[in-house]
Amino acid sequence: MKKAVILLSGGLDSATTLFWAKNKGYKAHCLIFNYGQRHKREIGSAVKIAKAAKSEFQIIRISLPWKGSSLLDNKINIPVAKMVTGSVVNRGIPNTYVPARNTIFLSFALSYAEAIGAGSIFIGANAVDFSGYPDCRPGYYRIFNRLAKAATKKGVAGASIEIVTPLIRKTKADIVRTAVRLRVPLGLTWSCYKGGKKPCGRCDSCLLRKKGFSALQMEDPAYD
Amino acid sequence: MKKAVILLSGGLDSATTLFWAKNKGYKAHCLIFNYGQRHKREIGSAVKIAKAAKSEFQIIRISLPWKGSSLLDNKINIPVAKMVTGSVVNRGIPNTYVPARNTIFLSFALSYAEAIGAGSIFIGANAVDFSGYPDCRPGYYRIFNRLAKAATKKGVAGASIEIVTPLIRKTKADIVRTAVRLRVPLGLTWSCYKGGKKPCGRCDSCLLRKKGFSALQMEDPAYD
Repeated sequence: MKKAVILLSGGLDSATTLFWAKNKGYKAHCLIFNYGQRHKREIGSAVKIAKAAKSEFQIIRISLPWKGSSLLDNKINIPVAKMVTGSVVNRGIPNTYVPARNTIFLSFALSYAEAIGAGSIFIGANAVDFSGYPDCRPGYYRIFNRLAKAATKKGVAGASIEIVTPLIRKTKADIVRTAVRLRVPLGLTWSCYKGGKKPCGRCDSCLLRKKGFSALQMEDPAYD
Repeated sequence: MKKAVILLSGGLDSATTLFWAKNKGYKAHCLIFNYGQRHKREIGSAVKIAKAAKSEFQIIRISLPWKGSSLLDNKINIPVAKMVTGSVVNRGIPNTYVPARNTIFLSFALSYAEAIGAGSIFIGANAVDFSGYPDCRPGYYRIFNRLAKAATKKGVAGASIEIVTPLIRKTKADIVRTAVRLRVPLGLTWSCYKGGKKPCGRCDSCLLRKKGFSALQMEDPAYD
């Protein structure tokens, strides 16, 4: 069975990506990060999802003492997002952006993939219904794929470790539809940037998620 | 004063790089990694060097539970290197290679640089007298520089965080010469891959270091 490393945050997109990879026949090795995020409860969701998918997982603890993001710094408020005709509108890149986060996550994934002989890394990045983060865009992944070749023993030997982004061009509604088809345990996922008992319903991540379910006139099992 | 992030391992090359950046007028913010390396004592050396350079430093602890390297796994022997007419001869990439290590280090540096508003990241990579690691080669850094632009808020806004490799084309003798000129406290540096009380004198890193000092007919103050 071909191995893949899956970046699993516990949200809708990464859970769907895990089930997508499993559906394609990969043996999934999930990486879950505890990086000081305000919404730590997503880690518990990620663990439950990995178990539901009968997949291996590792929790990696990292510290980013310089913070630089409202997701890491409780003194900065999470912005309330605005929906205009079905889209989330932001002015530029919001303060929930964590400097170089996906580059850090992918670099660990690259190390893990090379060590266990996995040829693919899956990440649920999306550049349609998203917050505008630079490291969620297709061009970023094209370059990271070149880097993966130059950076690794496997890459310089002519093989490659490919970064795969199955959701990158999908709308949130498409993602929900895919999740339903793949029987993702949607009730276990957690998307809200705030770490409360219930999703806040007002941050970017909640609004984007709502948009997906609303478009399909579906109830969101995690928001009951 | 323009800020720079410096990757500081505690070895000859990174110490020289720190003093090189300082000499160019940068305010240095050093990143020191505790990543489970066998030669943990390099961390203490790095701290002493950062202090000697009157620079800020942060120690970042990371775990790479998948190992994949003799530097992380005590069950794998560190290879004894061979010197042939002044060069270290290896068959391919040695087992001291840590999968994606420099990509991980640079990704943290990129995050740190963006959070504190530093425009440069310095790393003492060398592709002349080196162990053949893929992530020490110029082509790798060219791609990482492109990634840094695509990955960050600063990069997509048109500015950049540049990865600078001042030693990449130097011989080890050139590096020692540069270190002496910049008054690097060479006696504080630690290069040996084994974590013993004294350097082993037989691993790649020891042999490359010896080569540099021998070429200048200099005594190595760390090997007394």
